[in-house]
Amino acid sequence: MTQMLPPEVLNLINAALTEDQAFNDPTTQALIPDNIVGDGILRAKAAGVLAGGAVAQQVFHRIDPALEVNLLLNDGADLTPGADIASVRGSAASILRAERTALNFMQRMSGIATATNQYVRAVAGTSARIVDTRKTAPGHRFLDKYSVRMGGGHNHRLNLADGILIKDNHLEARASLEEPLADVVRHAIAQASHTIRVEVEVESLAQVREAVDAGAHIIMLDNMDVETMREAVAIIDGRASVEASGGINMGTVRAVAETGVDLISIGGLTHSTEALDISLDLEFPQ
Amino acid sequence: MTQMLPPEVLNLINAALTEDQAFNDPTTQALIPDNIVGDGILRAKAAGVLAGGAVAQQVFHRIDPALEVNLLLNDGADLTPGADIASVRGSAASILRAERTALNFMQRMSGIATATNQYVRAVAGTSARIVDTRKTAPGHRFLDKYSVRMGGGHNHRLNLADGILIKDNHLEARASLEEPLADVVRHAIAQASHTIRVEVEVESLAQVREAVDAGAHIIMLDNMDVETMREAVAIIDGRASVEASGGINMGTVRAVAETGVDLISIGGLTHSTEALDISLDLEFPQ
Amino acid sequence: MTQMLPPEVLNLINAALTEDQAFNDPTTQALIPDNIVGDGILRAKAAGVLAGGAVAQQVFHRIDPALEVNLLLNDGADLTPGADIASVRGSAASILRAERTALNFMQRMSGIATATNQYVRAVAGTSARIVDTRKTAPGHRFLDKYSVRMGGGHNHRLNLADGILIKDNHLEARASLEEPLADVVRHAIAQASHTIRVEVEVESLAQVREAVDAGAHIIMLDNMDVETMREAVAIIDGRASVEASGGINMGTVRAVAETGVDLISIGGLTHSTEALDISLDLEFPQ
Amino acid sequence: MTQMLPPEVLNLINAALTEDQAFNDPTTQALIPDNIVGDGILRAKAAGVLAGGAVAQQVFHRIDPALEVNLLLNDGADLTPGADIASVRGSAASILRAERTALNFMQRMSGIATATNQYVRAVAGTSARIVDTRKTAPGHRFLDKYSVRMGGGHNHRLNLADGILIKDNHLEARASLEEPLADVVRHAIAQASHTIRVEVEVESLAQVREAVDAGAHIIMLDNMDVETMREAVAIIDGRASVEASGGINMGTVRAVAETGVDLISIGGLTHSTEALDISLDLEFPQ
Amino acid sequence: MTQMLPPEVLNLINAALTEDQAFNDPTTQALIPDNIVGDGILRAKAAGVLAGGAVAQQVFHRIDPALEVNLLLNDGADLTPGADIASVRGSAASILRAERTALNFMQRMSGIATATNQYVRAVAGTSARIVDTRKTAPGHRFLDKYSVRMGGGHNHRLNLADGILIKDNHLEARASLEEPLADVVRHAIAQASHTIRVEVEVESLAQVREAVDAGAHIIMLDNMDVETMREAVAIIDGRASVEASGGINMGTVRAVAETGVDLISIGGLTHSTEALDISLDLEFPQ
Amino acid sequence: MTQMLPPEVLNLINAALTEDQAFNDPTTQALIPDNIVGDGILRAKAAGVLAGGAVAQQVFHRIDPALEVNLLLNDGADLTPGADIASVRGSAASILRAERTALNFMQRMSGIATATNQYVRAVAGTSARIVDTRKTAPGHRFLDKYSVRMGGGHNHRLNLADGILIKDNHLEARASLEEPLADVVRHAIAQASHTIRVEVEVESLAQVREAVDAGAHIIMLDNMDVETMREAVAIIDGRASVEASGGINMGTVRAVAETGVDLISIGGLTHSTEALDISLDLEFPQ
Repeated sequence: MTQMLPPEVLNLINAALTEDQAFNDPTTQALIPDNIVGDGILRAKAAGVLAGGAVAQQVFHRIDPALEVNLLLNDGADLTPGADIASVRGSAASILRAERTALNFMQRMSGIATATNQYVRAVAGTSARIVDTRKTAPGHRFLDKYSVRMGGGHNHRLNLADGILIKDNHLEARASLEEPLADVVRHAIAQASHTIRVEVEVESLAQVREAVDAGAHIIMLDNMDVETMREAVAIIDGRASVEASGGINMGTVRAVAETGVDLISIGGLTHSTEALDISLDLEFPQ
Repeated sequence: MTQMLPPEVLNLINAALTEDQAFNDPTTQALIPDNIVGDGILRAKAAGVLAGGAVAQQVFHRIDPALEVNLLLNDGADLTPGADIASVRGSAASILRAERTALNFMQRMSGIATATNQYVRAVAGTSARIVDTRKTAPGHRFLDKYSVRMGGGHNHRLNLADGILIKDNHLEARASLEEPLADVVRHAIAQASHTIRVEVEVESLAQVREAVDAGAHIIMLDNMDVETMREAVAIIDGRASVEASGGINMGTVRAVAETGVDLISIGGLTHSTEALDISLDLEFPQ
Repeated sequence: MTQMLPPEVLNLINAALTEDQAFNDPTTQALIPDNIVGDGILRAKAAGVLAGGAVAQQVFHRIDPALEVNLLLNDGADLTPGADIASVRGSAASILRAERTALNFMQRMSGIATATNQYVRAVAGTSARIVDTRKTAPGHRFLDKYSVRMGGGHNHRLNLADGILIKDNHLEARASLEEPLADVVRHAIAQASHTIRVEVEVESLAQVREAVDAGAHIIMLDNMDVETMREAVAIIDGRASVEASGGINMGTVRAVAETGVDLISIGGLTHSTEALDISLDLEFPQ
Repeated sequence: MTQMLPPEVLNLINAALTEDQAFNDPTTQALIPDNIVGDGILRAKAAGVLAGGAVAQQVFHRIDPALEVNLLLNDGADLTPGADIASVRGSAASILRAERTALNFMQRMSGIATATNQYVRAVAGTSARIVDTRKTAPGHRFLDKYSVRMGGGHNHRLNLADGILIKDNHLEARASLEEPLADVVRHAIAQASHTIRVEVEVESLAQVREAVDAGAHIIMLDNMDVETMREAVAIIDGRASVEASGGINMGTVRAVAETGVDLISIGGLTHSTEALDISLDLEFPQ
Repeated sequence: MTQMLPPEVLNLINAALTEDQAFNDPTTQALIPDNIVGDGILRAKAAGVLAGGAVAQQVFHRIDPALEVNLLLNDGADLTPGADIASVRGSAASILRAERTALNFMQRMSGIATATNQYVRAVAGTSARIVDTRKTAPGHRFLDKYSVRMGGGHNHRLNLADGILIKDNHLEARASLEEPLADVVRHAIAQASHTIRVEVEVESLAQVREAVDAGAHIIMLDNMDVETMREAVAIIDGRASVEASGGINMGTVRAVAETGVDLISIGGLTHSTEALDISLDLEFPQ
Repeated sequence: MTQMLPPEVLNLINAALTEDQAFNDPTTQALIPDNIVGDGILRAKAAGVLAGGAVAQQVFHRIDPALEVNLLLNDGADLTPGADIASVRGSAASILRAERTALNFMQRMSGIATATNQYVRAVAGTSARIVDTRKTAPGHRFLDKYSVRMGGGHNHRLNLADGILIKDNHLEARASLEEPLADVVRHAIAQASHTIRVEVEVESLAQVREAVDAGAHIIMLDNMDVETMREAVAIIDGRASVEASGGINMGTVRAVAETGVDLISIGGLTHSTEALDISLDLEFPQ
């Protein structure tokens, strides 16, 4: 990431510092004279995968450009408990004003990278990719998706514009016009920009056949059991990419991967993120 | 909440719709003619507590002011699986463009309210309040804290300006000036605005005594075991409010509450939120 | 479009009214009493295709929500000189403050729709689509691309995230790693999200063969003459979509279309737009 | 311009990078490793006048502050085909992400400067100034007007607040109050701030006489033929500035200038800009 | 003003509500149930001139669109102590959240209008206009200048772009190039856009002569005594507008006006505004 | 402050430069060549207390990052007439574009610091603190409150969220529910977050007794005469903090302080600020 944060992330950092009133901190005003220097270390307190180094750095620099922030590990690095992630040196008052906001970003992002990585390792050796969904925290799409990549996962659609995904509600809307699934798929392919693909969510093997015969580029198997998925993969037989979706967890993901699907999407990576425990240890050199 | 959303929430809603390219949805453009009307219901798929009705309503209206959105339940209401939360009627294309963003807000907010409520019910009958922390998703402070209240919890500091909270790093900074905890507390009280209180984080019973004798208004017991907390409560003896903090979970919260502490803060309510499952069911009347 | 303007367009409208100081108009302040009512018509002064009705409406309403603005023609409609596009009735002062900004939007948008439509009609009967490029006026991407659709064209990538397009600079970068084109294509396909396609810009028939054999989904023929394009289409033979690009104008577009290419991209639609002449005629009923 | 870009231009640059998703570029992510260095030259591919150097520089720096961008020519410089405009050195990935947006700005700005310069040279030796209008691309007022100056032109009103310009619609509004043109002019002069001038748009020699006798500071001759303009200049006889406006093109501008008018306004400079062809040539030193 | 507030004022209103945390009001949350209705009157507590009605109305509506706000007096109206300015009816909680921000705007704006009006009345019967300066509260330029007009004053330059004003620092800069005042004036007139005028600040009668002979459109007499001003007016003799500036107060303004100057600028109207006392009286109908 | 300005202040600086069109200054464009260097000094022209150094520095740097701005005095320093506050060296054109906006900030801020300091010195030797109110210029809350601190004052609530303050309107609302003052106080204490205090505005000694007996943390004596205040202090007798408020001025503040109140709030510090006279003296070294 190396400093190249998009405008919406810079806006989010400003919003986060504003909502925390980081520039109006009576505790720091009362207790920390301006000339006290602090030596801080961002340190992992649990095992996981790092994400959010450049964002945390930007938070510190937004509060005080004179802080020296050195990233000791790159995003994507494995963390062991106690691992030093970054050092921050400069005005102790500035460090304390930025601490919580910097950690809030890094803990969420590393939490996403860590969970993603657990899934990625669970399917190692299969041909399945772990992908995310659009179920991200509002305003965090870029960061959430970036964190998934840092954990070794791949990104599904970044946003609605990124591909055509025909879901049950779209099918029902067209069904109300008495159009069968195959025609909906053909219609979408004809209408679509040439740069994107057409994916269809299906719930039965009959729909699988209909979709793949109509030329769908990707078939999403929604909430199917492992055995049905295996049959679907056989039916599709390489004519389209296959995505497994719905209710997959660490207990089932390996079996799903072994059905031969190409993609496994896990909404919980970003909608039910567990923060990774990271703290700031501060020392005051004499 | 009833429509009165602060500017930062309106900005966040705009940011969320922008990052999802909700106005550039090729699936909807290809498949859903403008004149198809949809009848949608936001429906709980799991038990919990609702939060986010007005935010979801605003998301739909931001996409299309002509959508009729009726909130069938108030924020704070108990949800049973299958409960109807809100109805949305109007252009099916508009509803589909807004769906994911509206759900992303409501699922996170209801997830926070639900988890909070579980803790609140676990301590029912004691005098302890469940409170949140500043460990919120960046940009979501207002919504996260609001959701805690909807779940029956109370808010700790909204932001840094809301009170003085002397933590270990502040104590160490002053210790480097050779100032004992009691003097730090007295100094903070003398400096503080008269409208806010001074809270101190302590790690031992010795520090408890020192802090309360120095006049601290609130004592935060950091990561103490239940027995030590009980002793701390006895030492403080009503001279200050007592907050238990650190590593408390659903398995231990009742025992903590029964020590007599006034406040129990749970960071996980907002930093490790589990989304509540809510979906949009759409029908197409002929 | 019907009022559903994305946040970035609302921001652009605000920026346009601010840069024109539409709320500080000394001419109107000096000459137009608040109680004078005006009856205005937005009227085409040249033939073309309309785009920008909802944007102009929003400009008027941003200045004065009490203005009655009725769109008499839909975006995409053919305009003859003298055609009435929209009526605006209300405070004459408000109408005059908004006039220039409303027209600036509508004239640019209709200019794009009109030029697009000329190309679309020029290739009628062939299987070629007219598509735009990312050479849009900064800040106008959404509106420029929308206007192309209103003229009957299709959109190429909305933005960088919308697909993979390997251009000469990318090939050179990989060539510096001694990687041949075919490997670059394969690498891109392997890395790409499953929802997007991989397009390659080629400059020779040798590159066409290499790209299509490597599995590229779309081949962009860069600045080829018509005869070479025809050969390229024959070589590709349906295995990929084919886009013609570079230096194509109204004099050559039909011949290009007849080579059998699927897509013809025209940068000038948006980078060298000629505004369509539209004026506001205002009357003052007694 | 040298780095001093106003806030609205910085906002427009951010909007342009956001709408292009310059931070989400799967092509670059897939193909360009972070450690590849590129050596780029922005190079004119057609003759013209340069504008937009500092804006392009800011675009590159917004993406990556570590890029070395050197402006080899100043805005206002004449360009010959092949001329080197600026060099960019640093991360090839960063350069590729910024390329299109930087070029979109510079091509539009240089297009305006180039067209302006053609008009300025066409009237060389006369006393007429070439001026722009308020018919600019929304959001681009500052940049469009700056580019006109770089081409040797002058600016008409930057915005509505910059002067009083009484047009036909204002006259009609006052006529509905039964006020003759001369009284409208006198009224405007009496009301106007002392720092701005009063200009009137007239359509006949009778109106010319009435306006100049009433003390108008500037007379705009709207859509008059060259002979009538010459008579108008004689009537005005130095008592007011004279502006020619409406339908003037490269074929007629010299004759208009020779009538003795002071100002010739050309809307097409900014509403129908033809982009100047500029490209980025990138090399990859080993 | 009637609702037509420019974007920068809407932004300022949002900023003001955000900085006051109007959506996070624990007093109202604790004490005012949502169903309590309030009947409020904005009431003058001192004599003066009203400004800010539409801004206050917008503040209330931004907090709660359901509040009924009726403006009982127009901006510019004379206020006597006890005068009813506006009524507000609806949720008492909403009214209390908005109260302070609404009053902060209206008290400042009415304070400016009131002070302006005192000066305007002091020069009644002379030909002098009272004008403001650019010494406004940052972010309040539009509102401060509008309030001056409501008090019967006129506006000097709205901003730097609104006219040329050559001050001592500009003269010194040119003097360092050995250019006399007359040449500076001629140079500025030659360079200026035709829509604006050239004003020069002078400190002696010699400079007055030099400036007016060089053709300056406006002469600003800086910190001259009344007698010298009278001589300056005689020298200028109608060839330019004359502005008196510097250190003029209510005790001296009449004498200054009687010298025959056209304009008297008073910085204190906006840089040292005294707020007009206005309060919100709230009743709670049963 | 040292460069660490919150996002809302950076936004306000941008808004101020935009509203002044600091980047479109025809005077500077016409008269000041880019290569002229200026040597400027910000200099006090009256006695007072400085505030706003870092803000002025940021204004200059926002216009031109190459300007060298050195703060010669710290905020909070006493100013004598003629005192040098800061030096600015670099492009004279840049300095002139920024001058007015930089001074507008610094003159208001120093005016607040100066007035505050006069009150602070008037109560020297008593135990009373001078505090501000929420009657600040909209958008200036942070800067106004900071300036009060620089003058030696303390801050009352930064915003509504910062404490509970029960005013007459709240009491009346509860009275309409037939709840006596004491119950309102108890209710507020029970509902309040543990980090903030509860203050009550009272108008009689009976209310003083009721409030303090109910446990109010702070009693605000509204518009009481000095004798009554003294009695109130005696009644409260250290059980709560005491704030004097309403109609206190430099003539009465000492007597109020000597009653033994803890806090004296002065709205006029920020709602009726008198700007401190500061100017920019510019020289042009050969």
